[in-house]
Amino acid sequence: MSARPLLEQLIDALRCLPGVGPKSAQRMALHLLERDRERGQHLAATLQRAVEEIGRCGQCRDLTEHELCAICANPARDRELLCVVESPVDVLALEQATTYRGTYFVLLGHLSPLDGIGPAELGLDELAERLASHPPAEMIIATNATVEGEATAYYLQRMAEQHGIQVSVLAHGVPLGGELEYTDQSTLAHAFERRQAMAGKPTGP
Amino acid sequence: MSARPLLEQLIDALRCLPGVGPKSAQRMALHLLERDRERGQHLAATLQRAVEEIGRCGQCRDLTEHELCAICANPARDRELLCVVESPVDVLALEQATTYRGTYFVLLGHLSPLDGIGPAELGLDELAERLASHPPAEMIIATNATVEGEATAYYLQRMAEQHGIQVSVLAHGVPLGGELEYTDQSTLAHAFERRQAMAGKPTGP
Repeated sequence: MSARPLLEQLIDALRCLPGVGPKSAQRMALHLLERDRERGQHLAATLQRAVEEIGRCGQCRDLTEHELCAICANPARDRELLCVVESPVDVLALEQATTYRGTYFVLLGHLSPLDGIGPAELGLDELAERLASHPPAEMIIATNATVEGEATAYYLQRMAEQHGIQVSVLAHGVPLGGELEYTDQSTLAHAFERRQAMAGKPTGP
Repeated sequence: MSARPLLEQLIDALRCLPGVGPKSAQRMALHLLERDRERGQHLAATLQRAVEEIGRCGQCRDLTEHELCAICANPARDRELLCVVESPVDVLALEQATTYRGTYFVLLGHLSPLDGIGPAELGLDELAERLASHPPAEMIIATNATVEGEATAYYLQRMAEQHGIQVSVLAHGVPLGGELEYTDQSTLAHAFERRQAMAGKPTGP
């Protein structure tokens, strides 16, 4: 028999998924073949379509199979608010967690000169055009709180300032439900330094 | 926009894989779309083929896309040795770990009357026919060392005895590299009871 058994080919193919080693791939292949052929077929078809059809939104660079993503195509979203994130999963996370009704710009990465990722690779010229032609009232920088994310945020902040746009960033501090004992030192130092006055009763609306 | 975004459909579809929750599914979908479309396409095509083409070997019930699996179709394998396992992954594991050159019979499960899995579901009538028509010299029972696996092994042992076939089972004991301190009590008790005499120098060939 010349060709390798199809089962082994499937196990190998499954290993292209991140975090899937030989044992998990075996388990997945067997599960799909023995218990769940219908959903396996569905996965194959969906993956095929996704790989072929999904491109980037012409406005925000998010992943979508249409010309514009669902958010950019939605006239009810507020164009005066622009939130810049690193990745499409950040859009999903913010959409699930918040009631934000503005629009996004997805960098699909962060500045990383050593890996050859500069402003052009992140579409920052597109962003600059957008800031010039349709300046939002506020640009919310929601890059990751990593070294690269912060460097990218600094670059974005200077861009927005050049266009006279108000910039905000996500609050840093102790996570809700987090214990001080297990909060890392820099987060704790930051949270302590930026401590907020407690009003006797809540102020503002 | 009526249909759900294809990206979300893909994330949902990936969750049919065992051990994949919402976050891993997101990570997998993004990885395939951003970094590895070619392998994503390959996975989709392989999965599609596997789900459509893979059936059971007519002789040993292992998963294969052919009439006979590679092992049953191989004339060099020794028909006098028959190893009975629960699952196709056990065949893979034994083939990788041992130099076994006999044939297999794959139950695709274990006896579990509460789940409605009896001898018929495991193809034990097929096995009985095979034991009658082409009795092997030795039947190696390699079911899992679980309660259900042991029950299945007991049933298999009685079947083989009815056909006057010699039966063997895998050795139980402390795993190689295992520390006594972390070996579970029943394994340790079993290993202690079945302790083996150490020869001054190795006997046998």
